[in-house]
Amino acid sequence: MMITSTANSRIKEIRKLRDRKERQQMGLFFAEGIRVVAEAIQSQVEIETLLIAPELLQSSFACKLVDDQKNKGVDIFEVSGSVFESVASKENPQGIAAVIHQRWCHLDDIKKTDGIWVALDAVQNPGNLGTILRTNDAIGGDGVILLDQSTDPYDISSIRGSMGAIFSQKLVRTSFEKFTNWKNQTGWYVTGASGDAELDYQDVSYPQALILLMGSERMGLHEHHKTICNSMVKIPMIGRSDSLNLAVATAVMLYEIFNQRRRQ
Amino acid sequence: MMITSTANSRIKEIRKLRDRKERQQMGLFFAEGIRVVAEAIQSQVEIETLLIAPELLQSSFACKLVDDQKNKGVDIFEVSGSVFESVASKENPQGIAAVIHQRWCHLDDIKKTDGIWVALDAVQNPGNLGTILRTNDAIGGDGVILLDQSTDPYDISSIRGSMGAIFSQKLVRTSFEKFTNWKNQTGWYVTGASGDAELDYQDVSYPQALILLMGSERMGLHEHHKTICNSMVKIPMIGRSDSLNLAVATAVMLYEIFNQRRRQ
Repeated sequence: MMITSTANSRIKEIRKLRDRKERQQMGLFFAEGIRVVAEAIQSQVEIETLLIAPELLQSSFACKLVDDQKNKGVDIFEVSGSVFESVASKENPQGIAAVIHQRWCHLDDIKKTDGIWVALDAVQNPGNLGTILRTNDAIGGDGVILLDQSTDPYDISSIRGSMGAIFSQKLVRTSFEKFTNWKNQTGWYVTGASGDAELDYQDVSYPQALILLMGSERMGLHEHHKTICNSMVKIPMIGRSDSLNLAVATAVMLYEIFNQRRRQ
Repeated sequence: MMITSTANSRIKEIRKLRDRKERQQMGLFFAEGIRVVAEAIQSQVEIETLLIAPELLQSSFACKLVDDQKNKGVDIFEVSGSVFESVASKENPQGIAAVIHQRWCHLDDIKKTDGIWVALDAVQNPGNLGTILRTNDAIGGDGVILLDQSTDPYDISSIRGSMGAIFSQKLVRTSFEKFTNWKNQTGWYVTGASGDAELDYQDVSYPQALILLMGSERMGLHEHHKTICNSMVKIPMIGRSDSLNLAVATAVMLYEIFNQRRRQ
């Protein structure tokens, strides 16, 4: 049966997923477009519902995806084009979207191996967060630890910016206090980046297991947060401004860490 | 006289600056917020009008800015809070904005010194463009060359992302064909970044005068565009994805170039 009313109760539930609180309560998120749905399927995340609008879905690749999922017993929810557009955030939607279960890890799940993690204090911009997930995936990093009042990685802008890394990167949400206790217990090495650090970011030998701690877009790293870092480094700048975009600064740090590893 | 009608003809003209075509025809752009207006004034760009809403303008720093500009003979246009909100793109606007003259350079203005330029082929996302301006400013680069169908650096998202670099970086807009002819005549060294290049980006000694050529977000660098490059390099990736965010990839390249320069 095809749903043609935007007042349908399941459609209303899906529309609620635009709101962070609702996403959190339901433990779900909404991802749209052929590419992102294909990535979700490839990553074997738990898809709750596959939402499709046959009249919009023209790609044969996408139709095959849907058939495969149908055969695997995934719930396929068919709606009209106008109903689909009522839940889509993009213009000219491709007629495929998924409601997916959020995945969260705990600090205690993090094994002390040679992993690279990024800890973000109160990151505000979901686009930045998505880009950081994408970059950490690119250099073989493990995941992102979101401290205190950080934005939601399951925000649509974060999902888009991550280009699929939202499905592969591990995600932890915790307070700075719990993070500090866990760091002290486990002995993880934490390096922090800040414009007022003395040490050049290229003058440090980064260990194999490492957490890169970055401050928020507006405030940078708090004085209090710097105290837990094993090293504090700065990225040199010679222009007018005294800061970089957060996703850019994180990428410059991550590539230095990655370059040191791959040169060994 | 304070303007209280959103139908005021000057207000209508200012609102038109949201549209790229209008911006281009008038040779103007709109920048809002205390920080960006302060940066504009500091950079000594040509301000056409300073738009203020006294009832919203609470910062004493901003009030002093306005007084200084008034004394210098800059046209101050006072409007009510609601009129200001009708032209502002941010919520809770700070009550200060400026209409500013666009600045463009020509390829022939570029001197062959030891400058670093970024050439972008058909960059689509103005936020990415703003971030690239910010990063190029940070490493002491000179400016950005926008090739073919590139987005507008004077789009509000680009201005915001640039964090003031929009006022200091030089901007050139041209076709790939003209760029190629100019490169051949002047002998500028061009390095291109592409995922399918053979050479690792750290295995090249970059010259002092250099243009970094980057492809678009979706397509990367066209085959045809690679042919004019003196070197083609790749940024290594070991994750699931085969690409980085454009602003991130540009930053990783620019920091390698900058690191080589400052180590010499």
